[in-house]
Amino acid sequence: MPDRAVAVAPPSHLPGVAPELLADLVDANRILFRHDVVDAFGHISVRHPLRPDHFLLSRNLAPGLVTAADIQEFGPDSEPVRADAPPVYLERFLHGEIYRRRPDVMSVVHSHAASVIPFGIVHERPLRAVFHMAGFLGTKVPVFEIRQCSGCATDLLIRSREQGAALAADLGSHSVVLMRGHGCTIVAPDIRLAVFRSIYTKANAELQATALALGQPVYLTQQEADAAARNIGGQIARPWGLWQREAWS
Amino acid sequence: MPDRAVAVAPPSHLPGVAPELLADLVDANRILFRHDVVDAFGHISVRHPLRPDHFLLSRNLAPGLVTAADIQEFGPDSEPVRADAPPVYLERFLHGEIYRRRPDVMSVVHSHAASVIPFGIVHERPLRAVFHMAGFLGTKVPVFEIRQCSGCATDLLIRSREQGAALAADLGSHSVVLMRGHGCTIVAPDIRLAVFRSIYTKANAELQATALALGQPVYLTQQEADAAARNIGGQIARPWGLWQREAWS
Amino acid sequence: MPDRAVAVAPPSHLPGVAPELLADLVDANRILFRHDVVDAFGHISVRHPLRPDHFLLSRNLAPGLVTAADIQEFGPDSEPVRADAPPVYLERFLHGEIYRRRPDVMSVVHSHAASVIPFGIVHERPLRAVFHMAGFLGTKVPVFEIRQCSGCATDLLIRSREQGAALAADLGSHSVVLMRGHGCTIVAPDIRLAVFRSIYTKANAELQATALALGQPVYLTQQEADAAARNIGGQIARPWGLWQREAWS
Amino acid sequence: MPDRAVAVAPPSHLPGVAPELLADLVDANRILFRHDVVDAFGHISVRHPLRPDHFLLSRNLAPGLVTAADIQEFGPDSEPVRADAPPVYLERFLHGEIYRRRPDVMSVVHSHAASVIPFGIVHERPLRAVFHMAGFLGTKVPVFEIRQCSGCATDLLIRSREQGAALAADLGSHSVVLMRGHGCTIVAPDIRLAVFRSIYTKANAELQATALALGQPVYLTQQEADAAARNIGGQIARPWGLWQREAWS
Repeated sequence: MPDRAVAVAPPSHLPGVAPELLADLVDANRILFRHDVVDAFGHISVRHPLRPDHFLLSRNLAPGLVTAADIQEFGPDSEPVRADAPPVYLERFLHGEIYRRRPDVMSVVHSHAASVIPFGIVHERPLRAVFHMAGFLGTKVPVFEIRQCSGCATDLLIRSREQGAALAADLGSHSVVLMRGHGCTIVAPDIRLAVFRSIYTKANAELQATALALGQPVYLTQQEADAAARNIGGQIARPWGLWQREAWS
Repeated sequence: MPDRAVAVAPPSHLPGVAPELLADLVDANRILFRHDVVDAFGHISVRHPLRPDHFLLSRNLAPGLVTAADIQEFGPDSEPVRADAPPVYLERFLHGEIYRRRPDVMSVVHSHAASVIPFGIVHERPLRAVFHMAGFLGTKVPVFEIRQCSGCATDLLIRSREQGAALAADLGSHSVVLMRGHGCTIVAPDIRLAVFRSIYTKANAELQATALALGQPVYLTQQEADAAARNIGGQIARPWGLWQREAWS
Repeated sequence: MPDRAVAVAPPSHLPGVAPELLADLVDANRILFRHDVVDAFGHISVRHPLRPDHFLLSRNLAPGLVTAADIQEFGPDSEPVRADAPPVYLERFLHGEIYRRRPDVMSVVHSHAASVIPFGIVHERPLRAVFHMAGFLGTKVPVFEIRQCSGCATDLLIRSREQGAALAADLGSHSVVLMRGHGCTIVAPDIRLAVFRSIYTKANAELQATALALGQPVYLTQQEADAAARNIGGQIARPWGLWQREAWS
Repeated sequence: MPDRAVAVAPPSHLPGVAPELLADLVDANRILFRHDVVDAFGHISVRHPLRPDHFLLSRNLAPGLVTAADIQEFGPDSEPVRADAPPVYLERFLHGEIYRRRPDVMSVVHSHAASVIPFGIVHERPLRAVFHMAGFLGTKVPVFEIRQCSGCATDLLIRSREQGAALAADLGSHSVVLMRGHGCTIVAPDIRLAVFRSIYTKANAELQATALALGQPVYLTQQEADAAARNIGGQIARPWGLWQREAWS
């Protein structure tokens, strides 16, 4: 891998996008990989700062290898705006359709984080906040079942605008939606908080599985979850500084 | 990160504090991070060696990045003594109130160690010593429920002297108190033993969860726990030497 | 370890074998080790590109240390073709007999991956696909019980052509066969896909065990599994590029 | 840490001991640490090659830091033979008493390996071989309960020849004995096999715990275990070469 200075250098094909935003998006890709939120699969996007119906997302590449030069601009149809764009992720539609439905969302993460997937497979155990770091999960995380929109013979991927819209509908006003037999999608008002939520969704799932094996957990109330989610956002600089260092060392 | 020699260099704003104590506190921050006791959150303090109603604690910073220059002095109200102090941890009050109530305590660790949290969430499974390295846990670790002092709508953080005092009361004469939906706080007669207890509280929780999945554990008796806790202290130099090397390599 | 350029340099004893194929086989050994699919034991082979009843496999060596110079050619009897061949793996027969029975198979992995073994030991819990990355597992992975062909006093190893043939028979047309009290064997139409399937068999087993502890999983239907298996193959370049980099860094 | 060449250089205080044996003992300390069999605690000894009622064991030091200069010679009373010996491990008696009782044993490992301890705590779940790599465990691993020889108020450590002899009696003719609330002790006919058995006892415990969570495991028969244990010994060069490289890299 190139070092960070090279990796975050703004490419000429994204004029007008603040270098700091691109750097955050590149850092985010590395951090998510370093924290095992994504492996060779999974992706993170940010809403375009100038054209709010567009978004920025890497070309088809493992997140751990993404540099600013790999970032592409996508239009409202989740297709790349450049005619000569390189191959892109199959599941880009989930980003576009969430940005369309949720004006408050500025960043979207899609991952196959291992601790989270079981909660999308076992219906009787909803994922929910068991500790203050994951208050944003609230008292019940919705699960998207692709069979409801596309039947029982799909490859489980979000391959069209219609499937993306169905996922966005199940996400509703939540921060996280699980995808049965597949993974999860996480949204936030900025890139750093999207990374934060991805890391602590994973942590919460691990804690909740362990707690359920011990007995009956005391979950956060909706008010506790809301208060914790509201207040933790102000602390984002602390983990981000650490995560960025770790990701490039 | 700077190397250790730079990181432990005593800053001018802490005159009269022995460089060895500061070095131990900086090492402790790194060791706790290296052992996954803390992530970007969590903190460790030491009672001030000259003013016993004061304590030393890093500014608001991830423990893995703390150097001696980041250490601040706090007064009996858990506020920094310097007028121009940098931003500090929200939960500093738990340190101050424990030092007030427990004259025997010289060091306090607050963490969100993953294996420990489930035991604070599931009431029917108290954390207790299952092996000799964690004799200091005794036969039952108390759990602090913030709802009892502050109701069901908090963000679960210790944000005031009152909440800190309630936590200290639940700690009582124990070495560890769990905090429901949040983490734990661990105390000891010196920094190194506070780190030791933090690492082995985490280890004991992992063992106990695995043992409970297998069947009915044979726990340490109170006498066994006391004997083990008493004798292990004399061995602290052995792990400390290893942990310090690992933390800076 | 030598660096990659040295490790993949084609040896003189394998004339006519494409350097790219040897490089993939060396990379595969390192990647499987890096991902904890194999430890000092386990092996990966490829069908010989010119003599389809022959195959290429390392001499008796830990996979993490294999270079192109260690690769040997084996004949239809699973014995090395060179008279002066170095010591070879005891279990080479499983490779030869699978290549004989399954003309579609071009690469075979044998491993003791930790998460997979329990599913070969506990008969009431068949391993099967719980997420789209492991669609190739289908709705039931067969288990080979060596007692059926060789009695209750073996060392569980595949030490003969007969045992290899019995394993190949149980594999049938599947991609994976578990071996009770031993490990598993995984086949694919090329080296990279064999590595992919090995990594995601391990991942699926971890997810399935966690899901089963939570409750009743929703498994992939046969159609979902088939669709996922069919489509994921086209994405192999993405993980391979990452895995190769990681394996040599 | 010094590099390997320095670490294994034979010290003047052990004349007549083959440098290869000392190098194996130093390597073994590092390997056990690298594989999380030991942390700062635990130790490995070898019977003295010239005086069979003596043994070689490090001074009181974390295994990950041990060099040949740290190795001490101990007599039949498990006390160091040099009058000016540095501080030694409290539990040296378990080594001496096992060497006395078991002439076939040439090396002894004592560890607190995390996956193993739960099987010593929960009586209804004996540790036993679930896969061929751990055939040496047989069909039931004995558990030493210190309360039977020393009552319910000990610190669980083996602090005397009497306690060591009681442990050796419970070990009997087995390869492994668990120690309730403490750890385990593992014996073998040479250093490398002692390390091998330590690593695969840990692996077997992990597999068995996972399998028990899934359902009823099929265990190895005594004959399978014996055959596997007998045959695997001949393969020790393969893992040792890898482990040694890893331990010093």
